Amino acid sequence: MRLFRRLSSALPALVLLSGSAAFAGDATSDIGARALASHWGYDFLADLTTDIGPRMAGSKAERDAADWAVDRLKKAGFDEVHIEKFPVTYWARGAEEADITQPRLQHLAVAALGHSVPTPAGGIEAEVVLFKSLDALIDAPDGSLKGKIAVITRKTVRAQNGQGYGPAVASRVAGPSVAAKKGALALVIRSVGTDNHRIAHTGITLYDKDAPKIPAAAISNPDADLLERMAAKGPVKLRLKLDNKSTEKVDTYTVVGELKGREHPDQVVLLSGHLDSWELGTGAIDDGAGVAIAAGAAKVIADLGQRPKRTIRVVMFGAEEIGAASDAYEAAHAKEAGKIVIAGESDFGAGKIFNAALPAGALGGGTSGRPRFTSTPQPAGAEFAKQLTAALQPLGVDMLRKPSSEGGADLEGIHEKDGVPIVDFGQDGTKYFDIHHTADDTLDKVDPAELAQNIAVWASFAWLAADSDVDFRALSAAAGSAK
Amino acid sequence: MRLFRRLSSALPALVLLSGSAAFAGDATSDIGARALASHWGYDFLADLTTDIGPRMAGSKAERDAADWAVDRLKKAGFDEVHIEKFPVTYWARGAEEADITQPRLQHLAVAALGHSVPTPAGGIEAEVVLFKSLDALIDAPDGSLKGKIAVITRKTVRAQNGQGYGPAVASRVAGPSVAAKKGALALVIRSVGTDNHRIAHTGITLYDKDAPKIPAAAISNPDADLLERMAAKGPVKLRLKLDNKSTEKVDTYTVVGELKGREHPDQVVLLSGHLDSWELGTGAIDDGAGVAIAAGAAKVIADLGQRPKRTIRVVMFGAEEIGAASDAYEAAHAKEAGKIVIAGESDFGAGKIFNAALPAGALGGGTSGRPRFTSTPQPAGAEFAKQLTAALQPLGVDMLRKPSSEGGADLEGIHEKDGVPIVDFGQDGTKYFDIHHTADDTLDKVDPAELAQNIAVWASFAWLAADSDVDFRALSAAAGSAK
Repeated sequence: MRLFRRLSSALPALVLLSGSAAFAGDATSDIGARALASHWGYDFLADLTTDIGPRMAGSKAERDAADWAVDRLKKAGFDEVHIEKFPVTYWARGAEEADITQPRLQHLAVAALGHSVPTPAGGIEAEVVLFKSLDALIDAPDGSLKGKIAVITRKTVRAQNGQGYGPAVASRVAGPSVAAKKGALALVIRSVGTDNHRIAHTGITLYDKDAPKIPAAAISNPDADLLERMAAKGPVKLRLKLDNKSTEKVDTYTVVGELKGREHPDQVVLLSGHLDSWELGTGAIDDGAGVAIAAGAAKVIADLGQRPKRTIRVVMFGAEEIGAASDAYEAAHAKEAGKIVIAGESDFGAGKIFNAALPAGALGGGTSGRPRFTSTPQPAGAEFAKQLTAALQPLGVDMLRKPSSEGGADLEGIHEKDGVPIVDFGQDGTKYFDIHHTADDTLDKVDPAELAQNIAVWASFAWLAADSDVDFRALSAAAGSAK
Repeated sequence: MRLFRRLSSALPALVLLSGSAAFAGDATSDIGARALASHWGYDFLADLTTDIGPRMAGSKAERDAADWAVDRLKKAGFDEVHIEKFPVTYWARGAEEADITQPRLQHLAVAALGHSVPTPAGGIEAEVVLFKSLDALIDAPDGSLKGKIAVITRKTVRAQNGQGYGPAVASRVAGPSVAAKKGALALVIRSVGTDNHRIAHTGITLYDKDAPKIPAAAISNPDADLLERMAAKGPVKLRLKLDNKSTEKVDTYTVVGELKGREHPDQVVLLSGHLDSWELGTGAIDDGAGVAIAAGAAKVIADLGQRPKRTIRVVMFGAEEIGAASDAYEAAHAKEAGKIVIAGESDFGAGKIFNAALPAGALGGGTSGRPRFTSTPQPAGAEFAKQLTAALQPLGVDMLRKPSSEGGADLEGIHEKDGVPIVDFGQDGTKYFDIHHTADDTLDKVDPAELAQNIAVWASFAWLAADSDVDFRALSAAAGSAK
């Protein structure tokens, strides 16, 4: 609550949205302050994790969550609330065990990687071969892992912006097929996570078509440490049992709600997150927070009693965790190509936003992509960037002088094929990978004041972008073609 | 390593043990500095957790650990290294599950309480009744819990000196029989722990003779939060399955090693910890650290090449966790009554020691129990207290002006029946109950520099007490009788 008070007290003087006729000089309609004072977003998240819980893509729980979200959005006054479905493969975790059996029995905390094949019923028991990285595994001679369990012990680096995830996650996504090609019976990785708890981090793995599919699992960081200490002393055997199952061609569900624009209802500002989650935790930070932020931001605007010029669309994607949402959404929406003027996704927990990145042209810097607020005459988009900067800085957010490079995973399809410009808000993810994809992903990990700051940022952006006439698509395209 | 350097650089000027003929003016034999520079204690702990792992009282692993420790002490140059055994009940955890089944299925992280009876094979499923404390449960009308599962949601308070444990642990120890007397089918408690991870804290429970024995388990803090949120909305059903087993009259093992005194081998300074551990983790902080500290401190003295006047005895108790060691040790050692001149136990992890408490008379304050270093003539014991204060303060330890009130659980028997005076070193336990009695109790939780500080404190004390002529028993008895 400390943060909440600090932000609130700083707010009356700002976010005055001086460019908006509807709100000029009207301090009571201050969007940021309204967002900070609202509990709707946190209640959304609390109820989603309490009343629904885990929401694995393709599961009945995911469908229940979608129905629940539709009801919640309708009650909140959204228009056009509906579900869009598409087929995916559902993967259900079963019993799973990992034990060191030699030199001495020790139980390990383990989680099968998402979409891993199961082990044979009796499990796999074999000597381990340890690799410090995926690169080291790639360098192992072909056939050298025959009859062995390969283990990658690479650690995940803690960083505020989450940059440690990319280099670490390759082991999880690509490791199994690399190990299989060398003859390994199974792959075990040190969890892609920065914590030191006896809790393993799951997450999707992808098999190459030309490699045998071998079982793959992650062990907790302390267990990886133990395995390394043991292996330094002599041969170590591991027993791995995974009993998961897959079902093809079930449906996943994306929930959509809109606030129709008062002047240009066909121009869409898209705010999103994903509704599905891994099933070990209750999907609080990944990505209950994101859908609560996107919907919560739009709810602040819905409650203003005045719609912006453009439509605000909230999308709660299904099946993000298995990488299925992006292409499916783009394909289903090809018919509305050109309508989405700008889009963003919140999918990095509820840590405070500390920076913002706009698409190149929208920074008001012309082709350089750098803002030039002091130049005369002002380039197209400069006034928008200036207003957004003024609204966000008091919330603790600096506008980056570099254009956004990427948005959420679910927006890649519409960004690449339809040229949708992306807005990206950088959150403090220092602790995000302590919890990501684990049983620890529960409501208590979300600070209500930090969630409210996220909603305030997104609501401020959403109003400014939706009530603007700036053609972000044209600016972005011009900046792109000028490179 | 930062702490380590800071302590080391501060040391040459102190711990000069000016009262000892053997070491006066010999800076190279500075005991504190030797302890800080030694890796023997940390290696002991690392190997114990790696090569042996969990050490449940009465298990084969506990026996293996005892044999391992005997070997380690012999190699380190201890005399009279041996095992003392006594019978206990061995309790083996089986499969365990807890699920909320209504209003919606959610899995909970659970751990049976130590020595809980199992549930029937199919489990117990019943509506829950929540209580905010053991007192509230005690106030429930008799018979009011018939057919219900009682849940105590009391939280554990975080405190540097661990004072939150005592008031919280009553739910775990006494709760099941209180609930049973009200008719409950089972008792579930919020874990006695300060963390917010999906990991439950186990620990011994004790059944009253006049109450039905009902199954008892702890759920993790986030799961207790979830249960509370759900229960605030309506009726909640819980399903609990525990499949543990007990075996009576197996042996537990206490390991002893001594450094025989050069002048008074029959006068014993006893340093201890406990070798057994709960089996969810590897017993690193509870109490691998304690035995590493006790043995590590003695090892520093063993390496001096000069024995103190009195004998230093290291005791690694078996079966502390089930409360069996204290009386058994006292009974087995009744024949040497009067020989133990002072005793201490390290059983609070490896957090830095920040205070020290001596038995009343040994503070040098006569019957007041308060030190009077400036008075003339000095009371008996004052010189010892003064030297110890001088040795410990530079290590970051203040001497308390109050006498020790209690020592480790394993020393209660000899303290109460044989009048053994107790030394107590207060450790920083701010994070101790995040980990205590969980799967998270692993080596990575121990900071090598903090462990070394503990060993330095105990080694300094052990030398001064063992090379002293002060009759702590007489001082303590006089202080006690003067009250």
